[in-house]
Amino acid sequence: MTKRTIDESRAAREAGHARLVEADHLGLKRFLRLDTACYEDGALPGRTKELLGLVASMVLRCNDCIDYHLEQCIKAGYAKDELVDAMNVALVVGGSIVIPHFRHAMATLEELEAEAGGG
Amino acid sequence: MTKRTIDESRAAREAGHARLVEADHLGLKRFLRLDTACYEDGALPGRTKELLGLVASMVLRCNDCIDYHLEQCIKAGYAKDELVDAMNVALVVGGSIVIPHFRHAMATLEELEAEAGGG
Amino acid sequence: MTKRTIDESRAAREAGHARLVEADHLGLKRFLRLDTACYEDGALPGRTKELLGLVASMVLRCNDCIDYHLEQCIKAGYAKDELVDAMNVALVVGGSIVIPHFRHAMATLEELEAEAGGG
Amino acid sequence: MTKRTIDESRAAREAGHARLVEADHLGLKRFLRLDTACYEDGALPGRTKELLGLVASMVLRCNDCIDYHLEQCIKAGYAKDELVDAMNVALVVGGSIVIPHFRHAMATLEELEAEAGGG
Amino acid sequence: MTKRTIDESRAAREAGHARLVEADHLGLKRFLRLDTACYEDGALPGRTKELLGLVASMVLRCNDCIDYHLEQCIKAGYAKDELVDAMNVALVVGGSIVIPHFRHAMATLEELEAEAGGG
Amino acid sequence: MTKRTIDESRAAREAGHARLVEADHLGLKRFLRLDTACYEDGALPGRTKELLGLVASMVLRCNDCIDYHLEQCIKAGYAKDELVDAMNVALVVGGSIVIPHFRHAMATLEELEAEAGGG
Repeated sequence: MTKRTIDESRAAREAGHARLVEADHLGLKRFLRLDTACYEDGALPGRTKELLGLVASMVLRCNDCIDYHLEQCIKAGYAKDELVDAMNVALVVGGSIVIPHFRHAMATLEELEAEAGGG
Repeated sequence: MTKRTIDESRAAREAGHARLVEADHLGLKRFLRLDTACYEDGALPGRTKELLGLVASMVLRCNDCIDYHLEQCIKAGYAKDELVDAMNVALVVGGSIVIPHFRHAMATLEELEAEAGGG
Repeated sequence: MTKRTIDESRAAREAGHARLVEADHLGLKRFLRLDTACYEDGALPGRTKELLGLVASMVLRCNDCIDYHLEQCIKAGYAKDELVDAMNVALVVGGSIVIPHFRHAMATLEELEAEAGGG
Repeated sequence: MTKRTIDESRAAREAGHARLVEADHLGLKRFLRLDTACYEDGALPGRTKELLGLVASMVLRCNDCIDYHLEQCIKAGYAKDELVDAMNVALVVGGSIVIPHFRHAMATLEELEAEAGGG
Repeated sequence: MTKRTIDESRAAREAGHARLVEADHLGLKRFLRLDTACYEDGALPGRTKELLGLVASMVLRCNDCIDYHLEQCIKAGYAKDELVDAMNVALVVGGSIVIPHFRHAMATLEELEAEAGGG
Repeated sequence: MTKRTIDESRAAREAGHARLVEADHLGLKRFLRLDTACYEDGALPGRTKELLGLVASMVLRCNDCIDYHLEQCIKAGYAKDELVDAMNVALVVGGSIVIPHFRHAMATLEELEAEAGGG
């Protein structure tokens, strides 16, 4: 199977992030900071905004972004059935074209659960 | 200006919805029910899911959908600064191409406020 | 309401098409010919390909394109319930974000029927 | 090469589908049924609607969905040149960004032909 | 016809921009600054980046954004046939779904030319 | 890691291209020629149009297309910081959903540099 494990995804993301920072472009660096900042507590709790990020990633159909936000959502304490309920909104809004990404997300959730239970 | 008022949007949506129902297609009717149902209380409160619907509509850039979800979000009790904070997530995820829709949303919010204050 | 009538849409499309031709760009002209040619009879009948064009326009959410293909589909002899059945596939694949375009399409179909019955 | 074989794709799809069903979310289950139902005979033959599903998947650029619909289209009896003619509509509507998915589809068709001829 | 004149578009954009600034959201303000900054001279001349913004707006199919970038491109000194050549790239990459936006762009160019020649 | 090397990507692209040509569909062949032609010198230099193709590929989020245009841009003599500046426009217009593709592009650039320096 070609699905990357969580550890491979994390390593790829970190290596990729390092390349973006090394590119040494001021606008790009500011964008990366803005991206991080938009999920911090504000008028809405950061926790809620992670869920928004997950749904946005689902309807725009980006597996890397889905994996990232799922991990953040698990850290923020969401239960699996809450995440499924959120992703169901993405499915209805975005249609059956979202289904392969929903399948991907469920496999990632399974890995995250295994990892959490592995201690 | 060509922006429809809220009342025009509501009338157009209702007339359009009636046409969909009259088309008398079983799958279509089921889809419409599924669409309504996905914003009802479940593992997540319906209130939270309205916010997810708003952000999904923003990143997919549909003004009609944005107007609908803004109205539902106002009914669900969200304050303007919370909605702006949610839409800012959509802006960061979806990019500057979302800006015209953010402007549209702010004008709609203004109308909804005027309407609420009009009593 | 801001929905253009069919006649206004046709006039706008023709005026716009004239501007594209006047631009006198060889690649653009070739693209326009390729666009026309792809709906002509080939391995599949042109009639079937008009339906494909309609569904592609629905999931990519372009009202101008939907109106154009609906008109071609009516000329090709599709009945209203067949077009609704085709657009239902677009709805399921593309999700609720397609609904405003489905409403738009039903209004256009109504106009096309009125026009056909007007003789 | 990283292209999954048809058998790997099928296995991944089935495992993923099982995870969706196990998630035990009523709305999600209903969506999956609606998705299956929309390709059954209705005002249009199911066979025609499989072709619509293929073109919708091409313009929305989802390889997993393309593979699924190609397989259904082959089962429904479409010849290779008919599928190429349908996908050419997707190419013209969706542009050169569709080309990598067209290449992917041709490789899948080759595998499906090899499989069919393997008996 | 429902196409807004350039003056109406400018007025709507300014009024909308004012609403975004008044929303008084730090992240949003930073995004707006980042958006402005990315078209300034850098490793590439700002002039070239306006053309990139135009093509990005075309393939993502946003008329408001197209109008804005066309105006900036005219100010930057591009001739009409250069802009047509750039938009032809967007047409090939993005497909026939871009055509209605290409027509819109040609009408806007006509208005911009009339305005420039009006003195 | 699952990222294909440049050589694997090139081989896959060539094999896929051959399948498209073998499909022997006149419209498809014409589209492929139009695609090649649109990056040749015209009102704009081909070199500028390669950059437009890169940015269009970034905002539409297609890694295969990004790799192809990066390679053409390097051949056309763009420096790395110019390409980063162009891709930053894509990032701002297209949003954080573009980030995984920006990371991918930086890895490809690294490979292209290694290849160029390998002589």
